[in-house]
Amino acid sequence: MALTQTPTHQDITEACRRIAPHIHQTPILTSKTLDRLSGAELYFKCENFQKAGSFKARGATNVLLQLKQEDQLNSVATHSSGNHGQALAMAARSIGIPATVVMPENAPTIKVAAVRDYGAEVIFCEATQEARESTLQEIVERSGAQFVPPFDDYDIIAGQSTCAQELLAQQPRLDTIVTPVGGGGLLAGTALAVHYQATGTKVIGAEPALADDAAQSFRTGEYQPRYGGQTVADGVRVALGRKPFEIIKNQVDDIFTATDEEIIAAMRLVWERMKIIVEPSCVIPLAVVLKNRDRFQNQRIGIILTGGNVDLEKLPFK
Amino acid sequence: MALTQTPTHQDITEACRRIAPHIHQTPILTSKTLDRLSGAELYFKCENFQKAGSFKARGATNVLLQLKQEDQLNSVATHSSGNHGQALAMAARSIGIPATVVMPENAPTIKVAAVRDYGAEVIFCEATQEARESTLQEIVERSGAQFVPPFDDYDIIAGQSTCAQELLAQQPRLDTIVTPVGGGGLLAGTALAVHYQATGTKVIGAEPALADDAAQSFRTGEYQPRYGGQTVADGVRVALGRKPFEIIKNQVDDIFTATDEEIIAAMRLVWERMKIIVEPSCVIPLAVVLKNRDRFQNQRIGIILTGGNVDLEKLPFK
Repeated sequence: MALTQTPTHQDITEACRRIAPHIHQTPILTSKTLDRLSGAELYFKCENFQKAGSFKARGATNVLLQLKQEDQLNSVATHSSGNHGQALAMAARSIGIPATVVMPENAPTIKVAAVRDYGAEVIFCEATQEARESTLQEIVERSGAQFVPPFDDYDIIAGQSTCAQELLAQQPRLDTIVTPVGGGGLLAGTALAVHYQATGTKVIGAEPALADDAAQSFRTGEYQPRYGGQTVADGVRVALGRKPFEIIKNQVDDIFTATDEEIIAAMRLVWERMKIIVEPSCVIPLAVVLKNRDRFQNQRIGIILTGGNVDLEKLPFK
Repeated sequence: MALTQTPTHQDITEACRRIAPHIHQTPILTSKTLDRLSGAELYFKCENFQKAGSFKARGATNVLLQLKQEDQLNSVATHSSGNHGQALAMAARSIGIPATVVMPENAPTIKVAAVRDYGAEVIFCEATQEARESTLQEIVERSGAQFVPPFDDYDIIAGQSTCAQELLAQQPRLDTIVTPVGGGGLLAGTALAVHYQATGTKVIGAEPALADDAAQSFRTGEYQPRYGGQTVADGVRVALGRKPFEIIKNQVDDIFTATDEEIIAAMRLVWERMKIIVEPSCVIPLAVVLKNRDRFQNQRIGIILTGGNVDLEKLPFK
């Protein structure tokens, strides 16, 4: 049965067990240079090495395995700037059903190509939240495909919670976990994992200043979704979801923002010093930790590196 | 005592023990996509995660630890397009002596910056083998610094052999190991490690077609060193060393070449699929394996990813 309310402790541990055979347990990397620069101990959970290149494989796999159990599942569809689309296409192929992905016309070429590589159909739309939703609506009505939302869904949130569950099992004594926040699925899932499994740990969201609807909603307590199309961090341009927000509002300790310049500088550090490929959305947590040194100094900090899907022709380095 | 002839089995195992506390045991990564593309099982030894960003830390550390034991070591100097310079600067700093590095004027900015970050002095010269050697000669005569050669040295070769020794310990049943060849230190060290420790395994060199002096020397049996300044693979532009060649001639099974286009395509595959940062020199073995599918199909192949020091502003992707 699909979840209709905030996932319980049992829901998230079941999600973990359900998806484990289908995803990678990703490694944790550390860097002495970045520890020195931040004045903290940083533990990077490398979801850039996850199947389909991001943590989104967790939520999509969780939902499809649930749907498969209970339904006559004929086809699935979603809208995505890229990573959820790739994840859904990958998961759909692995259980043998067709998938359609609505993508904004400014989505990175590599993400579009990857969705197609997994055998899914790509439909382009304008780069606005409204266009994404209305285009998807047409497809669902025309084809009867089951909509798998990218984040505003309790089973997706339970799926994304498995990343922090793994991180806490691999590195139990963390003072803080920082994740990016776009639609809010990962941050909400992380907050639930910590709430149920590591009550001493703080959970912080990290958001581009150019797409700070989660920070503003969190600060005011009022849900104020807004599409943030201008930030370099293409993975978090989406508007905050309502279901994630209700969890974030109660379970998250704070949300910090970073400018695009700070995000690009953090991305360069990870590429040059850690020698791994991460996308701009990934490094907002690191940017936030470096920027707020006083707040994070001397802490053991888990950072979820959410994905590694970047267009090598359009890198932000100058 | 510095080695004056081809390292013995005991020499290379001692080098391994000597440097182990000072370097990283780097991980081995695999990729289902690259296995599928190559038709082989590929085991990537990730020296891009090594200290100072490349396997060169092994040879430089081995030499400095040897010299430190026996000498009044006051300062060291070398010439390097980058990775050996960084490695020497790192090793010199860690034992507390000054280092000077002669670098060709077209060396990647990131490598120059890294050498300076480790506290070494950088002296630029023209991008030719002659200019590198004569500039270094002046420095050694003026300052009395001890020259630490990048590859044409038996202790360097013993140091570089530790990479294949580790690889064979981590992944014992390899049919073939493929390494890049520039000066020849890594290929010669790898050949010795296999000769003493894994006699069933073949050793193959991989070289840019634009800098194929090792392939030509190997094929003809005559030492024909030549500087290959035009290839994109900046780490292997140097001319083949005589001491490595004598070992390579006897212990290596073959040397294959790849064009710059094939090298760049292989580099893109590693960046996009494995999400790790490797420099062009690194991926010549992968380019060679992909190009000679019939030769390598169905084999278990160890590939040494030699380093990850690239200029993010000057990437070869278009």
